[in-house]
Amino acid sequence: MRIVVLAGGIGGARFLRGLQRAVPDADITVIGNTGDDIHLFGLKVCPDLDTVMYTLGGGINEEQGWGRADETFHLKEELAAYGLGPEWFGLGDRDFATHIVRTQMLGAGYPLSAVTEALCDRWKPGVRLIPMSDDRVETHVAVTLPERDPAGAAGERKVIHFQEYWVRLRASVPAEAIVPVGAEQAKPAPGVLEAIAGADVILFPPSNPVVSVGTILAVPGIREAIAEAGVPVVGLSPIVGDAPVRGMADKVLAAVGVESTAAAVAEHYGSGLLDGWLVDTVDAGSVERVEAAGIRCRAVPLMMSDLDATARMAREALALAEEVRTP
Amino acid sequence: MRIVVLAGGIGGARFLRGLQRAVPDADITVIGNTGDDIHLFGLKVCPDLDTVMYTLGGGINEEQGWGRADETFHLKEELAAYGLGPEWFGLGDRDFATHIVRTQMLGAGYPLSAVTEALCDRWKPGVRLIPMSDDRVETHVAVTLPERDPAGAAGERKVIHFQEYWVRLRASVPAEAIVPVGAEQAKPAPGVLEAIAGADVILFPPSNPVVSVGTILAVPGIREAIAEAGVPVVGLSPIVGDAPVRGMADKVLAAVGVESTAAAVAEHYGSGLLDGWLVDTVDAGSVERVEAAGIRCRAVPLMMSDLDATARMAREALALAEEVRTP
Repeated sequence: MRIVVLAGGIGGARFLRGLQRAVPDADITVIGNTGDDIHLFGLKVCPDLDTVMYTLGGGINEEQGWGRADETFHLKEELAAYGLGPEWFGLGDRDFATHIVRTQMLGAGYPLSAVTEALCDRWKPGVRLIPMSDDRVETHVAVTLPERDPAGAAGERKVIHFQEYWVRLRASVPAEAIVPVGAEQAKPAPGVLEAIAGADVILFPPSNPVVSVGTILAVPGIREAIAEAGVPVVGLSPIVGDAPVRGMADKVLAAVGVESTAAAVAEHYGSGLLDGWLVDTVDAGSVERVEAAGIRCRAVPLMMSDLDATARMAREALALAEEVRTP
Repeated sequence: MRIVVLAGGIGGARFLRGLQRAVPDADITVIGNTGDDIHLFGLKVCPDLDTVMYTLGGGINEEQGWGRADETFHLKEELAAYGLGPEWFGLGDRDFATHIVRTQMLGAGYPLSAVTEALCDRWKPGVRLIPMSDDRVETHVAVTLPERDPAGAAGERKVIHFQEYWVRLRASVPAEAIVPVGAEQAKPAPGVLEAIAGADVILFPPSNPVVSVGTILAVPGIREAIAEAGVPVVGLSPIVGDAPVRGMADKVLAAVGVESTAAAVAEHYGSGLLDGWLVDTVDAGSVERVEAAGIRCRAVPLMMSDLDATARMAREALALAEEVRTP
């Protein structure tokens, strides 16, 4: 079975681990979000790709869900001592190596997809991980600054990098607009459209529907390829009981005019894209609304509390895919 | 008193610490060797400048004489896990920060001299540290490879970077030629010639006469400025009892046809450059030979065993400078 998964960071990576457990022999291609990529200290940092790679490759800091296990932060401390920030972005000593290798390879002319493949040669994540695009796409967020913010005067309207919004400001102010800068001009990375066209099933894990899956879908050609693939497309709600399971998806859903409910997210993707949708059992009441939108819906436990629970979610998603495949 | 010191790495840095102890109120300008600079992992590494900066700024690893105190090597371990070398060059996590800041500033268009000044803003070494040149100079060494060497076939004649000769091969094969690549086209960094012209005394610490002081002197204009400064130029022998006090100066002296003795090094510099020369008491027998070459010579203890001993050496050098100043 060939499965294509559109993945953001932590939620996507953890779901993938469950999917691998559920179907160990499946051929899984992950199309990774690069919209939260950022250049720091002259290095190209790809947080979502790395979270997937480290999680599936056994190098992740399990507790925080991102970054490396057994990590130290001496380099970052020293950069701060030189007055070089940002201090709010947690780059550890081990993690730096990934960014140095990536930056060197990019500088030598390799596209990000080839670099990602080279990095995965070490980590052996058990999936084929492809960035959504080799072109630079960076999500920016329009905000009205709180008082006394380093980014500008109080009350000033600024467009800041997604990481600054997400990590430094912790989404503490409303996102007024979310712009995946460069997405319109970006092309899908080599292998992305081919993987979608060759898939038996396409899954949207409980990743952020706006800044993770949404950004991948913003690369021209990807949404169309999924819609036209002619195979089941099934998603899992990242919203449980009207709140994100983790992260701050509600903050960015508001920016695109979508309410923070499992049903509203399904409608946001739409029946033109989505064939099936899993909501949590606490949201069983919304199944009818989702199905009214033309999307087959089931209510099952959606908390990725451990690997077994996550594998069960993956099995439910694949079962729903089979269900929509044979109408 | 304005003192100009031409310095390499460990020997130069330790001598400077003694000089500061000897004359706390002196205005010291250090012209640093950049011939052992190397690009590693896409970063510009300046080992000698950093050794001076860390030693005088209190950040040095005292035991090994280079690199940072309280250092970890996680980043380097990870680079090796990615297959990225060289593994033989010891870059620690804290040390990496210096190279990242430097590389970023160079990339932004600042010359190395301005970058060095910015780095010293943090370390406050108590001297003005200027690289010999803002232009790229890298010392290369011609060797005949030992058997089964990563750099090429057994018996092959290769030109390798000085660091590869010094650190990886540990000077285990004869240096057949030493070429400061780029030196001929290099210009002294801003402030170098002015410092020399304004100096009251110029000192050559017991740094390597070929690949440290020799490389600085290879930048067109510097040797001439020192010779024409009209102030005492006094050096301290890095060779004690026919062997280098530390390092492997004998290996590179052979490449330039100079025997490894205190007297031969003085003659190598020559009376056109050098007014005074300190040899160790064990080399008292060579005083006559050095003076016969037109260089005033004294035999004093030259082991930098502790700060007091080093300060005494600095005082002896300054005393000899006064002696040659008033003939």
